[in-house]
Amino acid sequence: MTLDPSSHSLKTLLNPRSVAVIGASEDQTKFGGRLYKTLLHHRYAGAVYPINPGRDSLFGIKTFPSVSATPTAPDMVIMALPRDKVKGEIAACAERGAKAGIIITSKFSDAGPEGLALEREVVAVAAAHGMRLIGPNCLGLISPVNKLVLCSSPALNVEHLIEAPIGFISQSGALMGTLFDRSHGMGIGFSHCVSVGNQADLELNDFIEFLIEDERTQVICSYVEGIKSPQRFVELARRARAAGKPWLMVKAGATADGSRAAYSHTASLAGDFAALKAVCERENVVMLDDPLDMLSLARAMVRYPRRAVRNVAVITTSGGGGAITADQLSHAGIPLARFGAATAEGLAEHYSEGQAANPIDVGGRKHEGTDELGVVTAELALADPATDLGLMVLTTAPDVPGLTRQLADGADKPAAGGKPTLYVMLPGRVAVPARAHLVERGLPYVDTLAEAMSVLKGWKAWSDFREPAAPVRPAHGYAFERPAAGLLGEAASKALVGRAGLPVNREVLVRSADAAVDAAGSLGFPLVLKVVSPDIAHKSDVGGVALGIADANDLRERFARMQSRIAEAAPHARIEGYSLQAQESGELELIIGARHDAQFGAQVVVGAGGVLVELLKDVAVLPAPVDAASARRAVETLKVAPLLGAYRGRGALDVDAVVDAIVRLGWLAHDLSQSAAPGEDFEIEVNPLKVRLACQGAVAVDARARIGRA
Amino acid sequence: MTLDPSSHSLKTLLNPRSVAVIGASEDQTKFGGRLYKTLLHHRYAGAVYPINPGRDSLFGIKTFPSVSATPTAPDMVIMALPRDKVKGEIAACAERGAKAGIIITSKFSDAGPEGLALEREVVAVAAAHGMRLIGPNCLGLISPVNKLVLCSSPALNVEHLIEAPIGFISQSGALMGTLFDRSHGMGIGFSHCVSVGNQADLELNDFIEFLIEDERTQVICSYVEGIKSPQRFVELARRARAAGKPWLMVKAGATADGSRAAYSHTASLAGDFAALKAVCERENVVMLDDPLDMLSLARAMVRYPRRAVRNVAVITTSGGGGAITADQLSHAGIPLARFGAATAEGLAEHYSEGQAANPIDVGGRKHEGTDELGVVTAELALADPATDLGLMVLTTAPDVPGLTRQLADGADKPAAGGKPTLYVMLPGRVAVPARAHLVERGLPYVDTLAEAMSVLKGWKAWSDFREPAAPVRPAHGYAFERPAAGLLGEAASKALVGRAGLPVNREVLVRSADAAVDAAGSLGFPLVLKVVSPDIAHKSDVGGVALGIADANDLRERFARMQSRIAEAAPHARIEGYSLQAQESGELELIIGARHDAQFGAQVVVGAGGVLVELLKDVAVLPAPVDAASARRAVETLKVAPLLGAYRGRGALDVDAVVDAIVRLGWLAHDLSQSAAPGEDFEIEVNPLKVRLACQGAVAVDARARIGRA
Repeated sequence: MTLDPSSHSLKTLLNPRSVAVIGASEDQTKFGGRLYKTLLHHRYAGAVYPINPGRDSLFGIKTFPSVSATPTAPDMVIMALPRDKVKGEIAACAERGAKAGIIITSKFSDAGPEGLALEREVVAVAAAHGMRLIGPNCLGLISPVNKLVLCSSPALNVEHLIEAPIGFISQSGALMGTLFDRSHGMGIGFSHCVSVGNQADLELNDFIEFLIEDERTQVICSYVEGIKSPQRFVELARRARAAGKPWLMVKAGATADGSRAAYSHTASLAGDFAALKAVCERENVVMLDDPLDMLSLARAMVRYPRRAVRNVAVITTSGGGGAITADQLSHAGIPLARFGAATAEGLAEHYSEGQAANPIDVGGRKHEGTDELGVVTAELALADPATDLGLMVLTTAPDVPGLTRQLADGADKPAAGGKPTLYVMLPGRVAVPARAHLVERGLPYVDTLAEAMSVLKGWKAWSDFREPAAPVRPAHGYAFERPAAGLLGEAASKALVGRAGLPVNREVLVRSADAAVDAAGSLGFPLVLKVVSPDIAHKSDVGGVALGIADANDLRERFARMQSRIAEAAPHARIEGYSLQAQESGELELIIGARHDAQFGAQVVVGAGGVLVELLKDVAVLPAPVDAASARRAVETLKVAPLLGAYRGRGALDVDAVVDAIVRLGWLAHDLSQSAAPGEDFEIEVNPLKVRLACQGAVAVDARARIGRA
Repeated sequence: MTLDPSSHSLKTLLNPRSVAVIGASEDQTKFGGRLYKTLLHHRYAGAVYPINPGRDSLFGIKTFPSVSATPTAPDMVIMALPRDKVKGEIAACAERGAKAGIIITSKFSDAGPEGLALEREVVAVAAAHGMRLIGPNCLGLISPVNKLVLCSSPALNVEHLIEAPIGFISQSGALMGTLFDRSHGMGIGFSHCVSVGNQADLELNDFIEFLIEDERTQVICSYVEGIKSPQRFVELARRARAAGKPWLMVKAGATADGSRAAYSHTASLAGDFAALKAVCERENVVMLDDPLDMLSLARAMVRYPRRAVRNVAVITTSGGGGAITADQLSHAGIPLARFGAATAEGLAEHYSEGQAANPIDVGGRKHEGTDELGVVTAELALADPATDLGLMVLTTAPDVPGLTRQLADGADKPAAGGKPTLYVMLPGRVAVPARAHLVERGLPYVDTLAEAMSVLKGWKAWSDFREPAAPVRPAHGYAFERPAAGLLGEAASKALVGRAGLPVNREVLVRSADAAVDAAGSLGFPLVLKVVSPDIAHKSDVGGVALGIADANDLRERFARMQSRIAEAAPHARIEGYSLQAQESGELELIIGARHDAQFGAQVVVGAGGVLVELLKDVAVLPAPVDAASARRAVETLKVAPLLGAYRGRGALDVDAVVDAIVRLGWLAHDLSQSAAPGEDFEIEVNPLKVRLACQGAVAVDARARIGRA
């Protein structure tokens, strides 16, 4: 198979000169009937070849008994045949010279191994003639800019398609139809929508690449269940960024329950959500929870290209609405813009004391019947340098359409600087003309505060992105040597991270009290003593850990006590010896770790250490290797981050040392990934890393690792 | 003033025999014109007296030059006069014998001290004649069951009002109009809606009481900015519960930003959100974040009275939709029902392997064209004993209305047991007839997954409620003695909680090393030494804390070191002595505390101890006194709760001791509140409470308290 994945061929695929509809009919209860009628309705400009051996013409267009009888080889064929007829028909189309085909039929790889085998055969017969496939188990495509609709969804029963520079690629066909339907009602249009189904041949990444290059697309939306080629995904994210096109994504399978549902849907693995999320954060692919919110954000970004949104001015018709909005912004982590003196002064002319601040309640006007108060208010709020976006929260009021028009006029004033606005249209029927007015002016709106929050969170995440620096190998003190596969004990694990340059506490393996006392001299009191045995997983359960050993006498006594308690509690354990360690002090315990993700490779992790890591999930994940600035930002996102600053009378801690440890562990992870044989992975965990006051470093006092196969 | 707050009088108020509209006109740009037309349009059955000295009749109804000229004293008057005319008009109405009045006009107590003074005068002139007032600064009322509309909102320009047993009391007028508008469009009706405005006379609680007694109301909704009479609020919550009427609430001012906006709106203090939330949890008043979601939950509860909802079966037209739904349910803490063998078997007849589980994707059917598959599926999913509710997540598909009808038919089958369903209508225009069908059958739906999650979370919270037992005073070991006002040091604070029966570590105040060594004998090593000084806030900053003192020599040495370091670091500090304390061991540190809330009185708090309490906000708040079972449930909600069970090889901790400490602190808080003079409050904090293994207790090792004025 030599498949040409270039987006050039997709350009033809999405704008074919001719389309053959296998099984076309006039019967609107049949797939072929609905599809054919929809295609004609939207006035596709190319040649249409209805294939139906039983009819001479359909809706006045000449039919053909089979694809072999068409006047030219069709650029595109589409079919929803029963599964056992698909392969034969694809073979016929491929032989006829069709360039591409869409297979709607399901029960291929989505239905188990037998279906997968058949799917592969179908791809092979097409590929033998250079024919490309979309699907199977998909809903087809909608390309408003090409007036091409190859989709039978009832969502397409609309008078006109709306064109807009938003591309949407979906791994779920039903969701594509739903979003098209809902978006159309809100005045949101598309350049191209593609349902990729099982991705037997053409896959999500192929269409993303096409959208990056497509001059009629500015914002890319995607609904993703699993990524087929992670490396290419990362590369495309960078290209989208370089092209200045925001890429938004909803990913199913964020939780265990979600993964199960995704698995049963398209037979693609949901992958490790945290790893994907880390990659998306690094590459500024913006993840949202809900596909409708994704489309609303896309519309806003298309209207206000390249605008950063961080601080929000709220204008509302209701003090109650303003209060709830302020609460929800606060929960979403989006600050209210703090107006400057000029804005406050300007507002004070029109508003009574309490209302001349953010949020602004236009109901709190000083003088009844102020003309065009909405214009002045929007202009003032947006002109303030602290404002990035105006959030207009409209409740049911006497003249919602008039006020909406006024606010939009105010935002159009030169002083408002073309800053973005987002309207929250809380009313129902009363605001219908206002919604229409917004659509006419190309202004984005949503209907609930929850949607507004989701849109603003996504927009802020996109705005806050900083291009990461290239990771740099530590200049000194880093050495890599691949350890043998297996579970590594504490000493071997510390040796591994120690070679990478992480400070580890000193330890000596001893086998007797005398040897311990000898070693103590070089380590210095206080000391820690731990039993070393491959048979003892929880050392403290059998009395195998002694902390705070003060002097030589104490050491002898506690060595003896440990020996006797272990002899009693674990009589059959093989004892390799006892690890005598310098007892390290520290102000805060963190965990840092590294792992290999099957899709995205090396990752590092940092979080609250000790027992809290499991309970609080206070963890940041980063693809490895990582640059120092990104590592620092990740540390700053932790809930325990305030403890790294000056806190309760003590000074700030050594964040530089934490960042250095993360960077070094990142390179270790990278080198382990690069040197791994196929199917091999690894896990390394340092817990705790004790962090000291600034300039006093951090030290790993315990570690474990697994190298090789799980 | 002798005001009669009984709900009997409100019954008349909401169903008056006659209404006078001050300033009625035919001019639809004026308030009086819109209000008058709306009142007539909805065919109010009582007498209507338009008051307008310049006209003989309006819309064919005889007018009167003033309220003194009406044939009978009106039961109700409504006005939106300029502020300076309100008092005179109210006086005239009161003298005429009007029973009640609605004042729409704003700029009274909502606009500062001058407005407040005027507002009080207005209330006084009405009260002098026994006339009751709603407002000022309100939007009036809508009483569909009485066909009474005293509200000028354009939301009322609808053909018919929808009656339903949902009452809604709002502190924001604009929100009432908005919610009425939005709800009407979704087929949600009301019994009564009242906008209470500044609550100068009649307040939120009055109308809540009315709704509790009103036989045409089953579910109570409220939008609240501040509570005027907290005791009555609590009492009403109990009465609502006793009446079997769920009470739902959206409270503005949950965050600092929200509070500011609420304050500027109605001049009512937002109060302490955590305290209100604790009271609502104890009384099963269900809090939601969004008013629209509140109405959707009310509709569902009205349709399915007294149904508990915990586990959800999802039926969807899209695997993708199912995956996202499963993710969102998981985030919301709502479990997917685990189907039993019978359900799985039944589903397996119709679905391929992956789809015969929860969520069920009806697109994953085995056989094309199965008739009425929706009926069978809904019946099977709802009949499963594990299912409490069927969540129908519909995407755009060929026959959404047909499938919707099938699912509803399935839910009507006897085997489905009348269990609740909630439809999520993701499509736009395609689902319009399906929405109409649901409204016709009285079945609840929402348009987004986010709304569904909010509804289900609220429903589950209501379902999970357990009636708290009456708190019982500890049978022994509890003594109360009110301390003198002021800041209490560690020893005095420990003495205070010690008298309440909390175990505290033993301590002795010493002033010399000799005295310390003497005292050590009774305490036993290891010991802790802490400086005691009113001038030293952060003891460890000046070397004022020594831990793990091992023996008498160690004690002398560290006593001397502490003295010299403090002399250096804090030469002017008044040293009262040194506290020598038994060093206590514990497996986990918690914080427990108590405070007095200005509105709701005594509260206790429990959370993760040490420094984490501030960072993680892992805290539960309870009104005091508290029963043991409620205290235990609160502890179980903490993020650190898993650490109280068996964990990493160690046994479970002494939760009984923690619960006992909370109960005792609750009584202490109660007794402090009861014995306080007006304006006095208090704070007590035990941090840490060290918790040991089961049966080994818990012990307070540090405490602080403030008694009296802040």
